[in-house]
Amino acid sequence: MMAAPLKTAVVGATGYAGAELTRLLLKHPRVSAPLLLSRDSSKDDAENFTRDLAEAYPNFAGNGGYPIESFSWEKLKNAGTELLFLATPHEISREWVPLALRAGIRVVDLSGAWRLREQCNRAIYDFKDADAGIAADTMSAAVYGLPELHRKKISQSRLVANPGCYATSIIVALAPLLRSGVADSAADIICDSKSGVSGAGKQPSSKTHFVEVADNLSAYSVFGHRHFGEILEQLGLDQQQIVFTPHLLPIPRGIMSTIYLRLRKSMSAEELEVIFHDFYAESPWVRFFGTKLPQIRYSLNSNYCDIGFNLAPDGKRVVLISCLDNLMKGAAGQAVQNMNVMFGWDEREGLN
Amino acid sequence: MMAAPLKTAVVGATGYAGAELTRLLLKHPRVSAPLLLSRDSSKDDAENFTRDLAEAYPNFAGNGGYPIESFSWEKLKNAGTELLFLATPHEISREWVPLALRAGIRVVDLSGAWRLREQCNRAIYDFKDADAGIAADTMSAAVYGLPELHRKKISQSRLVANPGCYATSIIVALAPLLRSGVADSAADIICDSKSGVSGAGKQPSSKTHFVEVADNLSAYSVFGHRHFGEILEQLGLDQQQIVFTPHLLPIPRGIMSTIYLRLRKSMSAEELEVIFHDFYAESPWVRFFGTKLPQIRYSLNSNYCDIGFNLAPDGKRVVLISCLDNLMKGAAGQAVQNMNVMFGWDEREGLN
Amino acid sequence: MMAAPLKTAVVGATGYAGAELTRLLLKHPRVSAPLLLSRDSSKDDAENFTRDLAEAYPNFAGNGGYPIESFSWEKLKNAGTELLFLATPHEISREWVPLALRAGIRVVDLSGAWRLREQCNRAIYDFKDADAGIAADTMSAAVYGLPELHRKKISQSRLVANPGCYATSIIVALAPLLRSGVADSAADIICDSKSGVSGAGKQPSSKTHFVEVADNLSAYSVFGHRHFGEILEQLGLDQQQIVFTPHLLPIPRGIMSTIYLRLRKSMSAEELEVIFHDFYAESPWVRFFGTKLPQIRYSLNSNYCDIGFNLAPDGKRVVLISCLDNLMKGAAGQAVQNMNVMFGWDEREGLN
Amino acid sequence: MMAAPLKTAVVGATGYAGAELTRLLLKHPRVSAPLLLSRDSSKDDAENFTRDLAEAYPNFAGNGGYPIESFSWEKLKNAGTELLFLATPHEISREWVPLALRAGIRVVDLSGAWRLREQCNRAIYDFKDADAGIAADTMSAAVYGLPELHRKKISQSRLVANPGCYATSIIVALAPLLRSGVADSAADIICDSKSGVSGAGKQPSSKTHFVEVADNLSAYSVFGHRHFGEILEQLGLDQQQIVFTPHLLPIPRGIMSTIYLRLRKSMSAEELEVIFHDFYAESPWVRFFGTKLPQIRYSLNSNYCDIGFNLAPDGKRVVLISCLDNLMKGAAGQAVQNMNVMFGWDEREGLN
Repeated sequence: MMAAPLKTAVVGATGYAGAELTRLLLKHPRVSAPLLLSRDSSKDDAENFTRDLAEAYPNFAGNGGYPIESFSWEKLKNAGTELLFLATPHEISREWVPLALRAGIRVVDLSGAWRLREQCNRAIYDFKDADAGIAADTMSAAVYGLPELHRKKISQSRLVANPGCYATSIIVALAPLLRSGVADSAADIICDSKSGVSGAGKQPSSKTHFVEVADNLSAYSVFGHRHFGEILEQLGLDQQQIVFTPHLLPIPRGIMSTIYLRLRKSMSAEELEVIFHDFYAESPWVRFFGTKLPQIRYSLNSNYCDIGFNLAPDGKRVVLISCLDNLMKGAAGQAVQNMNVMFGWDEREGLN
Repeated sequence: MMAAPLKTAVVGATGYAGAELTRLLLKHPRVSAPLLLSRDSSKDDAENFTRDLAEAYPNFAGNGGYPIESFSWEKLKNAGTELLFLATPHEISREWVPLALRAGIRVVDLSGAWRLREQCNRAIYDFKDADAGIAADTMSAAVYGLPELHRKKISQSRLVANPGCYATSIIVALAPLLRSGVADSAADIICDSKSGVSGAGKQPSSKTHFVEVADNLSAYSVFGHRHFGEILEQLGLDQQQIVFTPHLLPIPRGIMSTIYLRLRKSMSAEELEVIFHDFYAESPWVRFFGTKLPQIRYSLNSNYCDIGFNLAPDGKRVVLISCLDNLMKGAAGQAVQNMNVMFGWDEREGLN
Repeated sequence: MMAAPLKTAVVGATGYAGAELTRLLLKHPRVSAPLLLSRDSSKDDAENFTRDLAEAYPNFAGNGGYPIESFSWEKLKNAGTELLFLATPHEISREWVPLALRAGIRVVDLSGAWRLREQCNRAIYDFKDADAGIAADTMSAAVYGLPELHRKKISQSRLVANPGCYATSIIVALAPLLRSGVADSAADIICDSKSGVSGAGKQPSSKTHFVEVADNLSAYSVFGHRHFGEILEQLGLDQQQIVFTPHLLPIPRGIMSTIYLRLRKSMSAEELEVIFHDFYAESPWVRFFGTKLPQIRYSLNSNYCDIGFNLAPDGKRVVLISCLDNLMKGAAGQAVQNMNVMFGWDEREGLN
Repeated sequence: MMAAPLKTAVVGATGYAGAELTRLLLKHPRVSAPLLLSRDSSKDDAENFTRDLAEAYPNFAGNGGYPIESFSWEKLKNAGTELLFLATPHEISREWVPLALRAGIRVVDLSGAWRLREQCNRAIYDFKDADAGIAADTMSAAVYGLPELHRKKISQSRLVANPGCYATSIIVALAPLLRSGVADSAADIICDSKSGVSGAGKQPSSKTHFVEVADNLSAYSVFGHRHFGEILEQLGLDQQQIVFTPHLLPIPRGIMSTIYLRLRKSMSAEELEVIFHDFYAESPWVRFFGTKLPQIRYSLNSNYCDIGFNLAPDGKRVVLISCLDNLMKGAAGQAVQNMNVMFGWDEREGLN
């Protein structure tokens, strides 16, 4: 007998990640149509309030309505919400997650609010918690939502902090070589990442203006991007050991990270392939291309993180290529994958 | 002996058309470096005030500075300005042009403020003139700045209203067939136009967000675009006779208008070619391709309006293709062409 | 009890439409994994022969293999193929379809080989049939595969000629107004169509070179495109009554047709809306936007044909906007929709 | 008194670099209209032979003709050619350059044929010289045409080997830090480069097909790109010390190289700025942005190589950003700059 469908809610469905998440939940076989809530409850009567997802995303049109209601805790409770997805700014997530947990609702948070373990790294977001004790308690409940690394913890967690898109592409590529000990920890690791524009969010700005982005490429936040903290913590690295440079690509979606590292000793491509195959043997959403290099298009609109590598003739220097769709494996798809793990379902459920 | 270089000023140099215009003036052999003024004089001490054009457009860097000063009439007069280019919103142009003319300064206005002759069409812009008499006097001094049609009037004018980009592409294509009387005035003329995003201006909005524009095409302002008035007036048409539909293309710049009309009687391609060649025999910036169709790329970064056509097997239906660069022949290039005509120089000066 | 899954085969799976079709069939709940065949049987040992779809489209990787075998009738029969999809050049379809029908296999042909009823129009393709009698017999069995117009005939047909992408966008938009008799047949109908580059096929050429297409727009095949014949036949028009101009857009996929027509008498938007709603009441894959205009992005990756319109203030001139994904409703999606109709399934099956 | 204009010829004007070069020469104040020759002399009567540059590049239309003739040494001599530009495949350049030098004609060769000094590196191109002695003599006459490094030698040279586009972007960025000795030669230097599609040439292939490139990013030729040899030689590095990874960007033109290196000791941004300013004090075509990072758009359609950098908080790790237009400073613009140096003119002549 099939279990009753899970009752979910999404706050922030009109953002790019929130809309993609809603699309996925609507076709997920184990989930009922999600309750869509807008975080600005005061907007209920406002002229600009988007009352149906199809207004903001007409590609949703034609299948009945997707009403968006103003947020309230009462609505969440009345609807019997079992899992809450927050596609909200990190300040909002920081405030709301403790309230949701107290109300007995499990949470997948897509923001950066609960991703970092180390106090020192939390400085990145400059949180101003009303109650530091509650924040600390909440934090101790959070699990970094990369199933490939934390599958078991996620399955038991009430709060999953969905990883950043850049961070996912880099951590998935590097974890096998770092954890297996073959990487040379004395040499710099270089992560040169490139992202499509949807990663910058839906809010118009001169940075996302078509004329500024098209026919262009730009680097930004060098030595200062917020995802850097996640990368360090998850890989167990010190910031002296790794450099991360994001670039803005003239494409709507997709990320490639080109990663450079040295090995402790000369190895063959076959030896490296074994390490990756073993590491991800149970991970259906990592697709390993060996020495064929993945391209951004391969994983678009899928939940795959694609990995490939090339080895220098000396067998000691590796170039890793890691690609994913920033709205899927980099955000909404990974959130659904986390839900699948949290509720004991097949990790692929609803994502094919 | 070469005459002393003309003293010009540009208000609005940080917009797309204003920056392109400044680039052209800086390399024009008969013009001294233009005085660059910002229309918001109160911003002089503001943090966001762009003090040098190379801040907003780093492609200008490396050749010394291009300082932008806050606007004042005194600065204009002290600099001995002979010709003022206004790349300003039409409300500003409506207010400032009479003041400039009174100060003895000739004007090329890139806005829509002074393009329309007929009172009924002026309703389009809903101007709220402080002094209707002065507005009417100014209007009577204005010449529509399409040199291909009004070369002589422009040469004697103190106020040139630089045409709209869409309007230029359509008027240049249609004028020869309408004025020669071969077009069938009883049949609809259809103008299906497509423009790059710079035509929508530099202000970020959801309409110009890269993710909304890329991989997309959209029609807008059907039966309601402001350039429609210019097209009607210049071509001597009634709004029952012509339809104009603009579309937003996923490219930074360039316009194509695909125009459909019927001929009074069956004609050959050669007969049509003669009409175009004769009409534009003295117009160096109209490039006629005959039955080879121009593409948007051909005229990018040039001041050409490219025209080609195809004729139906019945010899009675014509498809005209008209392409131009919306920032050049559609704005800044045409403004320089108008300046050349106003001061008796070769129309090509500074535009090659 | 669920019926046994249908046995299908695809010839030409490595082309853009064939690959999209294979993707759809692989996830269709009533179809077993399609047999993939390459039409060039001599290539079996050739170096360049693509032996697995994931070689040509690595986005297919990671789910086991999708082997492609060289074509033979024996393989088709041994596999018990019930429905054959041909994503082949029209010359090949012209030759193979009679053989498939004789072998008792139903066919959906994606080429232009069997779309036209009138002998005069068949001149377009200049077929050189080995046996004119067989060709004529086959043709009499063919149904034009636009379910919105020919649902019943398709359900009984052994040979469905899948429509052209441009033709679909134009016929779906115009049929309601023409069949209801409100269109003014004395005035020209203008179809200004714009297509993404995948419509030009996978074969590299200067026309599809990135540098030639990007930042550009070009019109082509004016008064001479092959889809014109389908449009005329399906709409019951004479070539004097309608003009069709295709353009190449700098986007990978998607079509917009902007269509201009006159009404017999002045009508209201509401009256037009009723006509569309009635006409497509039973058609789940036509999405009607009323006076809100669809954009290309709305229907990307879906099987929808989106229709919207604007009406001139005089109530007599209509601008129709019709958008679809050329690889979905314009090719592979429509082929699956036709299969659904042929086998009595819900038209939406496997397409959501 | 102005000297007589230089007589030049271009072989390969229909390629992207050759066309850009011709455009530059046509407006150069010290050069007469170049003789345009096609290298395939047998094509003179062929149907596909491009007889005028405006056929292949209609943006050249409208200014009279630009006839292309089939190549012959006689034509070159009869025209009194003083400087020959070869925009030809390296095999052709390898064969023709010795002949041109023997005929007393100076050469700027845009191919890779004469760029490398070291025998070991020449293996990259696998030349099959008819006469190894002549090849060696010719090679000893060649100068690597990067004026920023070899200005004086170029001025005296009869054969200038115009550098590769990637190589220029990397060498210009790294030379100041390597030559000043501040770079840590024990740490890896990483060059992550991204290029627009025109760098792949005009020949259509699946690699340059719009549908394959758009919305995509791909790495290629990792550890195996031909420009690697130039980079090593010019920077005096060993291939163990540096990694170079090219990527294909979905833009028509422009290159960015993101370069990572370590300093011997901690330095301040100001100290690094002094090094760059001093190194390029006399180089008008290097534009130094300090810690503001250049973007690809800034240098498009100009001959600038733009350099900027960011320094890690530890003052020891540097990220360099280097941008240029691959058809200008990366090919045709640099060729003109080399001509200017060869003939003792201002380096900026004809390039503004």
